[in-house]
Parts: sequence; structure tokens; C-alpha cells
Amino acid sequence: MIIKTSPLAPTKLKKLYKIDGVGVSSVSCGIKKNFKDDLVLIKFDSPSQIYGVFTSSKTPGAPIVWNKSIIKNGKVSALIINSGNANVFNGRKGEEALKKIIKALSLKLSISEKEIYMASTGVIGEPLDYKKIIRQIPLLIKNLKNTPQSWLKAANAIRTTDTFPKLYSEKIKYNKKENFYINGIAKGSGMIAPNMATMLSFIVSNIPLEEDETKKKFKNIVDKTFNSITVDSDTSTSDMVLLILVKNKNRKSVGPKKKKEFFDKLESLMTNLAHLIVKDGEGASKFIKISINGAQNYKDAKSLGMSIANSPLFKTAMAGSDSNWGRIIMALGKTGVGIQNSKISIKFGKLLILKSGQIVLSKNLKKINNYLKRKEIEISVTVGKGSSNCSVWTCDLTKNYISINTDYRS
Amino acid sequence: MIIKTSPLAPTKLKKLYKIDGVGVSSVSCGIKKNFKDDLVLIKFDSPSQIYGVFTSSKTPGAPIVWNKSIIKNGKVSALIINSGNANVFNGRKGEEALKKIIKALSLKLSISEKEIYMASTGVIGEPLDYKKIIRQIPLLIKNLKNTPQSWLKAANAIRTTDTFPKLYSEKIKYNKKENFYINGIAKGSGMIAPNMATMLSFIVSNIPLEEDETKKKFKNIVDKTFNSITVDSDTSTSDMVLLILVKNKNRKSVGPKKKKEFFDKLESLMTNLAHLIVKDGEGASKFIKISINGAQNYKDAKSLGMSIANSPLFKTAMAGSDSNWGRIIMALGKTGVGIQNSKISIKFGKLLILKSGQIVLSKNLKKINNYLKRKEIEISVTVGKGSSNCSVWTCDLTKNYISINTDYRS
Repeated sequence: MIIKTSPLAPTKLKKLYKIDGVGVSSVSCGIKKNFKDDLVLIKFDSPSQIYGVFTSSKTPGAPIVWNKSIIKNGKVSALIINSGNANVFNGRKGEEALKKIIKALSLKLSISEKEIYMASTGVIGEPLDYKKIIRQIPLLIKNLKNTPQSWLKAANAIRTTDTFPKLYSEKIKYNKKENFYINGIAKGSGMIAPNMATMLSFIVSNIPLEEDETKKKFKNIVDKTFNSITVDSDTSTSDMVLLILVKNKNRKSVGPKKKKEFFDKLESLMTNLAHLIVKDGEGASKFIKISINGAQNYKDAKSLGMSIANSPLFKTAMAGSDSNWGRIIMALGKTGVGIQNSKISIKFGKLLILKSGQIVLSKNLKKINNYLKRKEIEISVTVGKGSSNCSVWTCDLTKNYISINTDYRS
Repeated sequence: MIIKTSPLAPTKLKKLYKIDGVGVSSVSCGIKKNFKDDLVLIKFDSPSQIYGVFTSSKTPGAPIVWNKSIIKNGKVSALIINSGNANVFNGRKGEEALKKIIKALSLKLSISEKEIYMASTGVIGEPLDYKKIIRQIPLLIKNLKNTPQSWLKAANAIRTTDTFPKLYSEKIKYNKKENFYINGIAKGSGMIAPNMATMLSFIVSNIPLEEDETKKKFKNIVDKTFNSITVDSDTSTSDMVLLILVKNKNRKSVGPKKKKEFFDKLESLMTNLAHLIVKDGEGASKFIKISINGAQNYKDAKSLGMSIANSPLFKTAMAGSDSNWGRIIMALGKTGVGIQNSKISIKFGKLLILKSGQIVLSKNLKKINNYLKRKEIEISVTVGKGSSNCSVWTCDLTKNYISINTDYRS
């Protein structure tokens, strides 16, 4: 089966920055067919701060289990990522494969095993041929480079069913001579295709920040970005987002203004990467933003938004450019969150569909139908129970989603 | 759009029984197009016991709100059902329309308003033209009949996107002269197409039973039957199942043996009706039974089973006859229910895929691929955490589901 590049793919890719103290390299180790790159090493010159958010799946892959066991130490010196095999549900053999790779890398780099993180993405339940990976470690180390091109290669090497590479960067100007940078790469297509188990993102910056506040703020931003997207409501066994702060030689901390700027730009970067994942959603022909306003609290808002974003009936209506707002009402109703029909308003773009429970769409029907034919659609729902808001992002559900997932292994 | 009859439709319909004290009639009142029957009256000669289970949606239709308000009285004399319009999200006007219909029927039949139940199924958010319904009440009353044919007509009149009528019956032999009967009709196709808001079932029997135990047992059977099926994970604003026990002139109660037989046969009837709904699932080409064994409790078992049954990735794999068991592992993992990978076994039919966490499918691959091409598939998953079991039923997810729901209103 030939999968075409998503019609929602960006026309231009963002260039990543050279960040001092970081080396990146990619090779083909033979797990993926066709000699495509499938192995990435990211190496940090000195032990760096690391923060992670991992899948909530109760059947997580071996890399998830390993990373969670060492993250309390908070330090990272190297990150190794393979694509083509998720090393999930391989039992003790999966654990052993991972440990052999970590040990080999630890010896070659002379770094502690507990400072080596791993991520694997690809097929579930097939033994990981760790020898293929270990054999390439010397070449990976030799090829380490600190260039924008090496980041692009890494973004390509971690792809599985992704139809385009996902990368983004931000710059924080500090003074005339000095800048801070944030580089991020991600993979994911179909949230979540468990065969190609799935959403991964690695973000690196050289801004100097304290431990505690970063952990909490990073988790909050993950909630608002990667945890606010959905393609098909399935949850991967391998999802992870890692943020790494490399040691900055020039300074140990920055003031509150620059801190704020960093977290704003980190949110922007993570939002952009999350959107790229949705835009590469399996079979997607439309990118849809759903905003919930006036909920009692953030949890309610998110639950209402995600219920719409995950509803197959809503997503098929969008695929058909159908102003079928009854499916939004249904999705709001099924969450169990208390709402009041007489206070619900719905807009498609700037066009009102419902105002305080009263139907007004008939006035705008032509305009609405035209609006729904666009590639990017915004839907806002006001529920009138409070003042909490949220935005979530999804794509439509098309016949191509069925094709991709029906024929996947054949 | 022309929708073909489901390939899973039964080749023969079950005949319903004549139950003394019940009259049934159907007419076309003009809500549905093409002069199809769209209005049903079921009338009971004397006030009968009624039990109901209703949708948990927080945006329920006006009939749901009305029925829930009167069910504490426990008595029913008439049931009126219209198709083509769900009377959902019509605000005060929806309530008024319902009350006018109830009032008109109450006057014509000289029965209390609080003994009249209503069900509406069809489009959401379009005003219900109650005058069309009231105008036909005299004809409905005049046509009341107590024949198998009148039940079949009613099963047809409550259809919306259903591609075949759904009915089932059971008989409990009491003595040479006397039998008890159970008649049931249902509608539903796509669980849940909120436009054609959705799953309805009405069950009538003449067995004499006490109030308390019936209520509890009926609820339990609903959990094991109608609440154990899913087509697309969406939840209707109008779902309801009503059980009505008409007054039996010959006796006031039966012994424990006959009671048990009744509840067993009621479960059989409700299981059959629930299966017919799945077999009419939008776009369905396969009927799939999923059994969970060895869970810690029934709730966990149901949560695991429904997670598989609702997973778009599992359902597309089934559409493609793909033995992609990784998607089952993924679906088990995402529920949050604690499971142990090393104890999981999976069977497709009688063919083992996983045994205590070890992959064995390669031995049987040809047989498995052939098995998955069947129209009816059984999947059993053992999780090894306890001794609770459950079965749930679903269908596959095909391109036809997308066609039906993309093009629905156009």
C-alpha cells in the first residue's frame, strides 16, 4: 500500500538550531526495510536535566518501564531511539534486549546506565533484534554532529507511518551575543496506531532553569498540547515526551522575564509539534480546532472537548462538510458532565449555529456549508456553567483512515 | 444515498405472539417521507407494571425526561412511539409538543396522563410537528389489533436507518392450557447515530411477577445485553428499554421455577434483540463477540471488553481480517484496569494467539487468517486477575460506516 503525503502537511519545515553541548546522529541498522534510517543517538556533553511525561497505558513498552525507573535521578547523558519495532509485549526478552543496548552504550560512552534513555516505536510483539542496534553504536558515536541537518535527519529516522517529518524550534534573545534555543522533534500519525506505537517527542534547550518549577510547568504544557490532541481515541503503549535542558556554560540562571518567555515559547513549540501530529492523522483531510468556553473547571472543559474530538459521528460529519450540530450535542451529553441545554451556544468559525439553546443556523446555512469545506475548521462551544476554557485539536475521519488501518499489515 | 440491507441481517424473522390484553397499531402520520409508517400505539386493557432503563446522556430528549418523571408510579396504560424526529434539543417547545400529545391521548383513551409513555427517534433539533401525531390518534385507536402481524408492523414503523426490523419472542409453558409469552421489538443501527437517535426496545409479557425483584433483575439483564453492545462508542440522547407486564387474568403469581425460566428467556430475548442491533450496525460486515475471562470483577471485565469493542484500530483490523493482536493489547492497556502481561491469553475462535503472554500465533497463522474471514467471529481474552467474566458484542468498522455517516444529511 502506498501512503500519500498528508494534504495537511506544512509546505515549509522549520530549521532547527545548533545547540552547544549536543550531538545528534542517525543510521540505518536494518530494523526498517529499504535501508531507511531507523536509529538515532542524541548525546549530551555533560549530564543534563531531564523531564518526562509517559503513556498511561497499563501495557507499556520496555523503554517506558526503563525510563520511568531512572527519571527520578533527573539526569541524562544520552538518548537512543529506534523505529520499526516498539519493543512492546516481548516479556523478559524485551527487557533483556533493552538492557543489553543500554549497557553497550554505557561502556562505549563511559557514562552511567542510569543516564541513558531509550525510545522504541514500531510493531508490537515482535522481538527486538538488539544486535542490529549494538552493532551500529560505534558508527552512531562517530557520526555525532551539532548541525540543523543532523536534527532533520533524526526527525526523519524516528518516523513510522508518518508521512512527513515533524520538527519545530524557538529562539529566546538574551543579549547581543547570547541566545537561548529550543529544538523539538516529534513523530506520530494516527493517535494512536499501536502497531507503530506511537507519539514521541524530544525537546532540547540550553536555557538554565531550576528543577522544581520546570517539572510542574512542563507537565501543564503537555496537558495543553500533546494531551489535547486526538486522532482516533486509541492510546499508545509507547507515548513519551522528554524535555532536556543542557548545561549552559555561560550562566546558571535567568530572570523571571526570560523564564516566562521560555515557557511561552516552549508552549508554542509543543503546540506546533502537536498540531503537526494531528495534521498527519491517518486519512486526515481536515484539521479541526475545538474550543470549549464557560465550563465549571478545566477538567470538565477538556472532557467535553475530547468527547467531541473523539466522536466518530462528529468526525465523519466533518469529513462530509456536514453542519450536523446534533452530533456535537450528543457528544456533550455522553460525557456525564452537567450542562444546561438552554445555555449552549455553538459557532462554526464566526458563524453562529446555536445561541443560548436556540437554533440560528438556518440564516447562515450557505455560508456554513462553504466554511465547512475548508481544510482548517474552528468550532467553539459555550456551555455557560462557569469560566473555564480549553482547546483541543483533531482531524476528520475518512475512508482513508479505514484503508490505512485495514490493509496495514497486508 | 441508497443503503443496502445489512449482510448480517437474519434470513428469517421470529413470529411474535398474541398476548391477551394488548393492542398494537401503526400508521403513517407524515413525519417520515414516502408515506412510511412512523407512528405506533401500544395499548394495555388495564394498567400494567412497567420497568425502564434510560440513556445516561446529559442532553436527553423530551420523551426521556417525561418517562423518567412518571416511572416511579410503575403503571402504564399506553405507549406512543414516533420515528423520523427525536424531539431532542427543542427546548420548551419540545416539552410542549410532548405534553399536547400525551394530553390528547389521555382524553381519547380516558386514561391518566401519568400512565402514558412516549418514545421519539429520528433527527435532533428539529421541532416535532405534534399536530401530525394528534390528528392520527383516532385512527391509531381504531386500528388497535392483537395479532403477530400488528407487532411486525410496529417493528417496521419504529425503524430509522435500520435496514431490517428487529423482533423476538419467547414462550414459557405453564400447563396444558396456559402459556406465558414475551414479545420484544427494537430499533437501532449505529450505536449511536444521534441524528436518528437511537436504541429503543419495548418488551411485553403476561407473566405475573412481583414488583421488587423484577426491577433489579431487569436492570441486570439490560447490563448484560443492550448495555454490552457497541457499534461506534457514541451514546444516544434517546435510548430506552421498557419492560411491560400486562395483567394476567388467570393468576397473580408463579412459582420460583417458572420465575427463573422467565428471566432466563427474557435474557435470551434481550440478547437476541441486542445482537440484531449490532448486526445492523452502520457499515457492519462482521459480527464480533468478545469474551473477557479471569477479571477481578464484572466492572473490570466490562471495561476491558468494551475498550476492545470500541477501538477503531481493532475494528478496522477485523474489517481487514487481520490477526493484529497488538491492537487488543493496546485496547486492554488504555482502560487503566490493572492487568499482568505474563498472564494474558488470547484466542480467535478456538485458535490460540497468545498463551500466558507468549506468542503462539505463528503456528496457526493460516488457520487464523481463514477464521478471520468469517462473518461471525469470537475473540476470547483471559487476563488472569480473578474469576469474573463478561461478553460484549460489536461489529467491524468499514468504509461503509464512513459513507453512511458522511453523506447522511446530504
